[in-house]
Amino acid sequence: MAKKEKTFRPQARIPRGFRDRFGAEIAAEREMLAAITRVYEAYGFDPLETPAFEYTDALGKFLPDVDRPNQGVFSLQDDDEQWMSLRYDLTAPLARFVAQNYDGLAKPFRRYAVGPVWRNEKPGPGRFRQFTQCDADTVGAPAPNADVECISMLAEALEAAGISRGDYQIRLNDRNVLTGLLESIGVDEDQDAEKKLRVLRAMDKFDRLGMEGVRLLLGKGRKDESGDYTEGAQLPDNEIERVLAFMSATAETNAETCSRLSDLIGGSAAGAIGVETLAEIAAQLAALGLDESRAKIDLSVIRGLEYYTGPVFEAELMFSVEDEKGRPVRFGSVASGGRYDGLVKRFKGVEVPAVGISVGVSRLLAALELKKAAGAEASGPVVVLALEEGQMASYQAMAGELRAAGLRAEVYLGGSGMRAQMKYADKRMAPVAVIQGEDERAKGEVTIKDLILGAELSKEIEDNAEWREAQPAQFSVPRGELVDAVKKTLARKR
Amino acid sequence: MAKKEKTFRPQARIPRGFRDRFGAEIAAEREMLAAITRVYEAYGFDPLETPAFEYTDALGKFLPDVDRPNQGVFSLQDDDEQWMSLRYDLTAPLARFVAQNYDGLAKPFRRYAVGPVWRNEKPGPGRFRQFTQCDADTVGAPAPNADVECISMLAEALEAAGISRGDYQIRLNDRNVLTGLLESIGVDEDQDAEKKLRVLRAMDKFDRLGMEGVRLLLGKGRKDESGDYTEGAQLPDNEIERVLAFMSATAETNAETCSRLSDLIGGSAAGAIGVETLAEIAAQLAALGLDESRAKIDLSVIRGLEYYTGPVFEAELMFSVEDEKGRPVRFGSVASGGRYDGLVKRFKGVEVPAVGISVGVSRLLAALELKKAAGAEASGPVVVLALEEGQMASYQAMAGELRAAGLRAEVYLGGSGMRAQMKYADKRMAPVAVIQGEDERAKGEVTIKDLILGAELSKEIEDNAEWREAQPAQFSVPRGELVDAVKKTLARKR
Repeated sequence: MAKKEKTFRPQARIPRGFRDRFGAEIAAEREMLAAITRVYEAYGFDPLETPAFEYTDALGKFLPDVDRPNQGVFSLQDDDEQWMSLRYDLTAPLARFVAQNYDGLAKPFRRYAVGPVWRNEKPGPGRFRQFTQCDADTVGAPAPNADVECISMLAEALEAAGISRGDYQIRLNDRNVLTGLLESIGVDEDQDAEKKLRVLRAMDKFDRLGMEGVRLLLGKGRKDESGDYTEGAQLPDNEIERVLAFMSATAETNAETCSRLSDLIGGSAAGAIGVETLAEIAAQLAALGLDESRAKIDLSVIRGLEYYTGPVFEAELMFSVEDEKGRPVRFGSVASGGRYDGLVKRFKGVEVPAVGISVGVSRLLAALELKKAAGAEASGPVVVLALEEGQMASYQAMAGELRAAGLRAEVYLGGSGMRAQMKYADKRMAPVAVIQGEDERAKGEVTIKDLILGAELSKEIEDNAEWREAQPAQFSVPRGELVDAVKKTLARKR
Repeated sequence: MAKKEKTFRPQARIPRGFRDRFGAEIAAEREMLAAITRVYEAYGFDPLETPAFEYTDALGKFLPDVDRPNQGVFSLQDDDEQWMSLRYDLTAPLARFVAQNYDGLAKPFRRYAVGPVWRNEKPGPGRFRQFTQCDADTVGAPAPNADVECISMLAEALEAAGISRGDYQIRLNDRNVLTGLLESIGVDEDQDAEKKLRVLRAMDKFDRLGMEGVRLLLGKGRKDESGDYTEGAQLPDNEIERVLAFMSATAETNAETCSRLSDLIGGSAAGAIGVETLAEIAAQLAALGLDESRAKIDLSVIRGLEYYTGPVFEAELMFSVEDEKGRPVRFGSVASGGRYDGLVKRFKGVEVPAVGISVGVSRLLAALELKKAAGAEASGPVVVLALEEGQMASYQAMAGELRAAGLRAEVYLGGSGMRAQMKYADKRMAPVAVIQGEDERAKGEVTIKDLILGAELSKEIEDNAEWREAQPAQFSVPRGELVDAVKKTLARKR
């Protein structure tokens, strides 16, 4: 056995569907999440950290079956035979935590959570099996006040992350409005589950298929370009018209939308509740300064309505940017949320009101990155070259002085020559190299090399020999002026 | 099936060996880690984030056997039959990352990592199956320069986290010194593996058993109080004396320790290398201002020497604090590290020099918490009571103004009366409650209630009626002075 291990050499590879991240990419996400969670904290939300594992039954999936124990979630059996799964979102652990600690919690209970979640799915381009979520939820407060707070907090969080006012819009809808519509066209949610789903899916395809496509899907069905046929919801014509009227009811002002809605579905009990809730939320938001440009009732928000029980919201980015090939990219939804009063019902049998928001971390980050892509600069540490073996302590002292002045600085470690050390500094994206060879030391000086200026100048100069002679991007100063000279060189880059 | 699910109600419970954390506990850890990683970054280390999973073979364990697939690590089989495991530390993923990306990395490669690791072990008091590690490593630089940097950075990181100079000491040893000792007593590391282990284990028990206990374990063996017998290493007397002399060789100054070591083991090739390395490290550290009070050669540092290949270091806290029962608690080691030049050998077949440090996050945090336990104060948000249903927007505006001034503030959400709302504010550890009922509103005022002063005063006052009359801990101000009044009230607590 031991012999076999000695010759076995595993291949160094990351598991499929996962990724490594290094340096600047992590820094950008960290900064964004810090900005968002500072807003959550200002609103009185406290952080909650639950473990990666939950018992599978507590997560709300059935016990994994023996042939495919990993359908959708990563699961394994503990020593005591209980099945555990890695969390697939941050809401299921919240439900478990609240149910477990219900009596001891100050209610309403406001918590936020940031952390990785895992999905056991087929990996694809841009689809990873581990990613970060960033949620905030209020448990124990009914609509509409807690919902208003979440929406207003989401707007503030987006702005704190760097999305300007005008560049986002939070779109609102309400589950009860949809129930009202279904009632008004005679679809019973419990008895006609199949029909209900067909209607919802048809409505959700408005963006892709337009009004005519939706009309077909609400009626007999639709054949797409490839010849595939999608069965329709088989609604009679007058009910199709009512659904289409509903979908066109989104007006410029929230007040007008509510008034149209009232006419269309106010006759249903659920519909009336939904309209009233939306009207109250819109009024409170307006009083807080969030008018339609930031928070607008939009009846095309359908996704998630299966899951939520009351108000639903979705933050969309309104600007488009260009990708590497110059094509416009629309970002769409970067955060969503809503009310789900069934949160802990699975555990406790009673409804506990809850409402929350979830930021799409990687999508929002991608949007922010593309927006400011032009601003990227050399961001590595100052590199102090190590040219004389016996002078290590002196190089360390230089780096120490630079760090004490608040700069990032490192000494080159290793026995390579000057050329290799300069190459290393480039690879590290160092803005400045500090050099002290025998000559400089004899004179009590250090040489400061401005690597960014150097890179710019070298683009302009053609004669390599002339360039080496002139060395315009470096200068020497007395050793005692090291920190000042580096600081001045760095300041020039701003 | 659907019917069955309706009646199944899972118990809300956290998997055994895991824990939830909330609020202040998370904040304290976050602050400590931010302080430490700021130092890492200043030294030119960049963050690396690898996924929770690694392929089991890449982690350096054998393929899990079918009967007990989870020995020590959490493992599961992916769809494509490959075994994956949750990382049990941050070093194994670093080795995989470096081997996988070796040619593209700027070397030396400095990275730090902070994140959860998982151990599939029997949980016990204070022993969790998920915990946080915080590591920094330099790959591609040989001893001693990179080692000096790690030690100096560790000292700075501990101070940044809040451990004062004088309250910690970093103890140094070197694997080669031990090899030299073993050579000098005629134990061949490869051929006498069993004997070697017995010697190391005996030396490691010095703290618990003292010199006499170690002497017995190096010789024939030792019977403990319970009557259990531990087989000894069976060394002859003169070699036992040499080992004991080695263990007494730790002197007040690093120079003296090196000189004694030279006499004891300088005759062995490995021993000579070890002594020279320790002497060079001590000299460089002294040049950086780290004398024996902060970094001291200590030959009793044995743990980890099996794993490391060169210098080894361990940071100990020198102060003791009292636990809840007034008993002194010594913290011992809160960080450790060393050189392990075999890091990527499993993958690439060649040695790549590497050295790193790892902070014991929960232990260091516990030490910091106990040290400043007296300073804990009400740290919740300001709570704005919601007494009149129609005034929600106005309460929200008050909270908004307080947040805009940099304070944490929340509106009470829910329909409870004043008494329940004040109870909620207490539970939230709110320092201040803001109250505007009908009377105050008519006068254009708000009432500021100082909950900390209130709690103090109520301890002193016996007559409840008198207390309710006087209400010394609250006062009213014009609505426009809300923010100033709250700020002044909070300032009084410092």
